Amino acid sequence: MRRASVRAAAAIALAGAAVFAHAQALRGTGDLGIVVERAAGRVQVVDTTARASLATIDGLGDLSHASAVFSRDGRYAYVFGRDGGLTKVDLLAQRIERRVIQAGNSIGGAISQDGRVVAAQNYVPGGVKLFDAATLELLSDLRAPAGPDGKPSKVVGLADAPGGRFVAALFDANALWLIDAADPRAPRTTAFADAGRQPYDGLVTPDGRWYVAGLFGEDGVALLDLWHPERGVRRILDRYGRGDEKLPVYKMPHLRGWAVAAGYAYLPAVGRHEVLVVDTRDWREAARVPVAGQPVFVIARPDARQVWVNFAFPDSGKVQVIDTETRTVVRTLEPGRAVLHLEFTPRGEAVWISARDDHKVVVYDTATLAPVATLAADSPSGIFFTARAARMGF
Amino acid sequence: MRRASVRAAAAIALAGAAVFAHAQALRGTGDLGIVVERAAGRVQVVDTTARASLATIDGLGDLSHASAVFSRDGRYAYVFGRDGGLTKVDLLAQRIERRVIQAGNSIGGAISQDGRVVAAQNYVPGGVKLFDAATLELLSDLRAPAGPDGKPSKVVGLADAPGGRFVAALFDANALWLIDAADPRAPRTTAFADAGRQPYDGLVTPDGRWYVAGLFGEDGVALLDLWHPERGVRRILDRYGRGDEKLPVYKMPHLRGWAVAAGYAYLPAVGRHEVLVVDTRDWREAARVPVAGQPVFVIARPDARQVWVNFAFPDSGKVQVIDTETRTVVRTLEPGRAVLHLEFTPRGEAVWISARDDHKVVVYDTATLAPVATLAADSPSGIFFTARAARMGF
Repeated sequence: MRRASVRAAAAIALAGAAVFAHAQALRGTGDLGIVVERAAGRVQVVDTTARASLATIDGLGDLSHASAVFSRDGRYAYVFGRDGGLTKVDLLAQRIERRVIQAGNSIGGAISQDGRVVAAQNYVPGGVKLFDAATLELLSDLRAPAGPDGKPSKVVGLADAPGGRFVAALFDANALWLIDAADPRAPRTTAFADAGRQPYDGLVTPDGRWYVAGLFGEDGVALLDLWHPERGVRRILDRYGRGDEKLPVYKMPHLRGWAVAAGYAYLPAVGRHEVLVVDTRDWREAARVPVAGQPVFVIARPDARQVWVNFAFPDSGKVQVIDTETRTVVRTLEPGRAVLHLEFTPRGEAVWISARDDHKVVVYDTATLAPVATLAADSPSGIFFTARAARMGF
Repeated sequence: MRRASVRAAAAIALAGAAVFAHAQALRGTGDLGIVVERAAGRVQVVDTTARASLATIDGLGDLSHASAVFSRDGRYAYVFGRDGGLTKVDLLAQRIERRVIQAGNSIGGAISQDGRVVAAQNYVPGGVKLFDAATLELLSDLRAPAGPDGKPSKVVGLADAPGGRFVAALFDANALWLIDAADPRAPRTTAFADAGRQPYDGLVTPDGRWYVAGLFGEDGVALLDLWHPERGVRRILDRYGRGDEKLPVYKMPHLRGWAVAAGYAYLPAVGRHEVLVVDTRDWREAARVPVAGQPVFVIARPDARQVWVNFAFPDSGKVQVIDTETRTVVRTLEPGRAVLHLEFTPRGEAVWISARDDHKVVVYDTATLAPVATLAADSPSGIFFTARAARMGF
């Protein structure tokens, strides 16, 4: 009897100890994020207040070109891997919560405005899949219309939009998709054919009104007014792209990195050493800013005073800071070799920059432009903070 | 010996049980918020995903006109009470973490861009106090210059600004203050005298560039360019305010509720049944929208397609929805008696509205404009969600 009591008490004590491991994680999630270690199939959980790594979680598969979105409570990251893996990571328990292989080749995804639906955009087979954000149960499978090769088109540029919708670009089908996912088991899809040749990425502006898709197969940009989809797709910036010279393109710019600052969009010019400034009121070009190389990500500091730019090889060791008032480069930084991504803290006092080939993440103070912290990471690529959960178009 | 083991095991088990109470709170903080129960000195902790109340925390003193800001991790709310109380509330442990009485009469506060400094604006004695956000230790005490009565001026309109700064309006001293709190124990204050008669509230625009202060003692608005404070304060909207007729004002509008949507600011006209639309590129009036009463809060849905307005007595039972494209009222709602505040969820799919005299909070779907949930609350006033931690000017 006494022995049984001891056993029972010990069992409870053990349970208590197990709980204790979790209890140590009792903390807010507003200052958390992940750093993708692309080659190792791992993510680091990071704390932007302490500027420290809290944990490493592995088993996420092929994370080249991986991206992530967050649950609306900030606890879970949904990581989209290149191998079609969709992994739900618990940032508090610091472990994988669920993982599914949902396609053969995937290129990212989005989460619905209400946080209930995770959408993945796939290359093979081409289409969009909608998942229950809690369980990762497949809710619907939208097969893309065929491209010239007869196969379902690759889907790119998937973004959430207000009203429980998603928008995407169909690379091979030269079309855009507007997906009403109010009923995610029976989504209603509107296709905009002849949107332009080979849309290769797209974004929703921070105010949720415009969807902008870059075109690879022709010179220009496709624009869809999400307040008036019935007006169809409009072509803008006919001199935007590669132009007549057909310059070599070392790395496709990421449109998701497009910055909108104080009503002007800052866009990476394809193949040129320039950032374009476009007035979002009439979508006309307002200026061009010469920069150090072919821009990849062009991202506004949250207060819109600065736009930060990284570059394709051979200029991938540089980051430039554009002042949005004078529209000139005010500083060139060299954070390390092969800068792949940058992410601002929610209110922009710092920016985290990944330098893949130096295996580090460097944190800069955006007021002084001085480095203030360095974290070790194994070939870091994407950096994603939980504040994305509260923003549109990510 | 055996008994000792039992005791030790039991003690550990008890410790485990104590931890378990906390462990149940292991959850993200991105979808949390508080509802102020003004008369009872309490706050409810609410969950915007479940649309439910999680806990009630009392002992916060006089909460009439109370407001709150959040720690950058989203775990703590700092509640500013009218009685000068500053209370740090732990939303996860669901209890008061710390509380200080820091003034005789206070009217709100702000938190610095990096989350390290909490600032309180005080009526009696007039000034600004800076506190360590972790400990609530007083770091500095900025006494305001005297007004006509020889006493330190009341301080209103305190807001955080990029670069570790705060901005405030000095009601009795007709001045604005720009406070550089990079060293919060030795802040540097720049005063802008003759900013206008009796600035009564102010806000920083969402992009962090402009500080806009309403004037009670004259017709117009004071504007400070935070990118160029050396240019001084400019007067705008000379026909903004009460005008020649000196209409009775039943309740001062809250400028903090001013909305900026797609480059246009929506401002409550003082004493008039109108919302003004102002182009933030040149700060000229672009339109006026007739509404049902004297507007109090004028708040943009995060995607900028709608602006929601509540009203002073006798129209305080109504809420109107303005479509920002047509600049007309598209719906009049009647959520309950004495609507005091409204707060959008981070991505705007819902809005929470407090109806003080019906002792309830009503949640509306912003797409259908239909009520989707009702929560009981004791004379609810302010509603504040943790996503504010990631935004500027709150």
